[in-house]
Order: sequence, then C-alpha cells, then structure tokens
Amino acid sequence: MMARPQTDIEAGRRLLLETAEGIIRDRGAVDIAISELASVAGMSPSNIYRFFESKEDLFEAIAERWFADKISIMETVIASSMSARDKMHAFFGRRFALMVADYETDPELFQSYCELGSQHFETVRGYVDLADHYLALIVAEAMQDGYFSKLTIDQTVSLINLMIQPFCNPDLIIHIGVRPTDDKLSEIIDTIFTGLGRAIERDNVIPMLSVA
Amino acid sequence: MMARPQTDIEAGRRLLLETAEGIIRDRGAVDIAISELASVAGMSPSNIYRFFESKEDLFEAIAERWFADKISIMETVIASSMSARDKMHAFFGRRFALMVADYETDPELFQSYCELGSQHFETVRGYVDLADHYLALIVAEAMQDGYFSKLTIDQTVSLINLMIQPFCNPDLIIHIGVRPTDDKLSEIIDTIFTGLGRAIERDNVIPMLSVA
Repeated sequence: MMARPQTDIEAGRRLLLETAEGIIRDRGAVDIAISELASVAGMSPSNIYRFFESKEDLFEAIAERWFADKISIMETVIASSMSARDKMHAFFGRRFALMVADYETDPELFQSYCELGSQHFETVRGYVDLADHYLALIVAEAMQDGYFSKLTIDQTVSLINLMIQPFCNPDLIIHIGVRPTDDKLSEIIDTIFTGLGRAIERDNVIPMLSVA
Repeated sequence: MMARPQTDIEAGRRLLLETAEGIIRDRGAVDIAISELASVAGMSPSNIYRFFESKEDLFEAIAERWFADKISIMETVIASSMSARDKMHAFFGRRFALMVADYETDPELFQSYCELGSQHFETVRGYVDLADHYLALIVAEAMQDGYFSKLTIDQTVSLINLMIQPFCNPDLIIHIGVRPTDDKLSEIIDTIFTGLGRAIERDNVIPMLSVA
C-alpha cells in the first residue's frame, strides 16, 4: 500500500495531461496557466500543485508524452539485430510513419504541438540530443563496417540529419507539398551509405560502379 | 515615343509593388485588396486597375519580383562552364546565401512572403517547376558523365530536392535551429554525386573506396 500515493499522483497527472491536450486542441499553441488547468479540470488551485508545480513542469510532461512513442521506436531499432543500414532506415522511417499518422488524424493539433515545441525549445532540445545520441550509435556501428570513413561521428550525424530533414522534421511534415514515400527514404539511406564520407578530393568523385 | 505608355505602366507597377511591400511589412501576410492598395498609394480605384486587374494579378507580380534574383542565379549557373558537380553546388549554394541574407535583413518580412507563398501556392508552383527544370538540366549533364545511372532524371531531381531541403526551402531557413554551412552543402553534393543512383542491390552496398 506504500505505492498508493505515487500511483494517485501518476493517475492525476495523466488525467490533467488529457485535460491539457483538450485545451490545446480547442485553443491552439497557447501556454496553459496552472490555475486555468485547475479550473478546466474542476480542481482547486491548491490541489493541482501536487501534480504540476509550474507551467514549465506541465510543458515538460506534455513533451514527455509526445516523445514517448518516438523514443520507444528508437530503442527498439537500436536493440534489434538489423544491419546498420536497415537500422538507419527503420530509425527514420518508423518515426516518419508515426508522425504522418498523427498529423493525418488531427492536423491542427499536430501543428499546435509543433508550435508549442518551438516556443519551449530548451525542453525539446533534450529529446533532439537523445535522437542524435541514438543515431550516433548506428553511425558508429556502420563505421565499424567501413562506412563514413573520412568523417567523425558528429560530422556524420549532422550531415545525415540535414539530408533526412523531410522525414524527421515535424514542420516539414506539415508544410511539404508532396509527401515523400518510404521508397525515397530507402534510396536516400542507400545514397548516404554509398556516398557519405567517401569522396577524398573533388577530382576523385568519378563514377565507381564499373570497378566495384 | 510609342514606348512611353508601356514605360509608364511599368514604372507605375514598380511603384505600386513597393507600396504593396510596405503594406506586407506593416501588416504581415494578408491579401491586399486592389482598392486598399489604391488608397495607400493615393490613387483612384479606377486608375489603379490600369496597373493590376485583380489581387491575383498583384500577387503574381509580387512573386515575380521575389523570384527574379533566384532565377537570375540559376540561369547564370546553367550557362557557366563549371562541372555538373560544381554547378549543382552553386545552384543551391548561391540561392541559399541570398535567402539567408534576405532573411537576416528583415526576418518578419521574409516570413510574411513565405506565408503569402503558401497561400498562393498555385502561382509559386510555376517557379518551383522552373527550378526543377534547371536542376534537371544539371542532372542530365551529370548523367552524360555517368552519374545517377540507375535512376531517371525525374527520380534524381526528386531525391536531390529531398536531400537538399535545408538549403532550398525558405520555411527551413526560418525554422532551422543551427544554420548549416556551405561546407556541409559541399559534403552533401559530394555524397549525392558519389552515392545517388549507384547502389544496385542492398547487398552490394559495401565500402568501395579501396577499389577506386
């Protein structure tokens, strides 16, 4: 029975997060004052501070909830027995499919979360760094197989993130004209594995297929 | 003297476009009614229709003005004697530098133009198609040198546009956290030339440097 208070807190936070999501759905990307959340949830202001101490604390919980399934995908991919190439494809492709599904379920809510994310970038940055950390693990594995040999891990991660923006940047999921397919992602991952960190000098960038 | 009326029309349109830019600077990405433009420019409504017949006509002229220097860059690059690889680098790099400079001069105005562009995407599409046409010319030239051999021109153009989004999508110029450098663009262009349309089968994507 010692766990009861903690469980109550968790259940209360979950309920309040759903209330907060309702407010975001209705009103868009506005900061939610704790007093307002209390009022909408029919809770006394003094009671609600047991669950969230500040609106920053509330936003951190909203972000944690938004990123939970993305982190789960990344951890599953990292732990899998796929090749580094297929891990990288799944790493981006599965999160892309999830974000597209979320966007299509409720475009306005998705956009509101993106705007909230820009407004609280310091909180979101921790999740971006975590994704970079997981990508670095895949890059390091690929390097052991001889890929990206002219670059450091950090350089490789940074260049891959640039080349893969349409598949990992939620803003682009909203704004892009024609949604790219998984086949295109696959071609881009192949291009990255075949070409990135390989060219030594400009003059050496010649067709190599004939000698492979 | 026969050219006089035409010159008057052009000078009047230019003056009115500058007035429209002032309205966009003050009020953001809102449609401008022709009657309002006349009022701000101190012109009678009947007179202004000599210059712009509708607000669609006005927006087309605003877009033409926004794209003029980008088209000039693309035409200069295409006509140059650079290699296909260096043309592609200049094709994206010079426009990127121009857009970054425009953005840094007046971030809000740049953002307003982007929003107007999304609102009038049918007009903007013509310019996107033109840029794709110029990129296709560079791709065709590279193909003559043996690059991108497993892909069609259209497939290649589409994949390059995806991999190069942070350098050609004005929305990403606004939203990106850390602005990528020209060195990174150069690495990405090298990766595209070395890797795109080269992998035949997944199993053949192996390190090739040792045999080059």
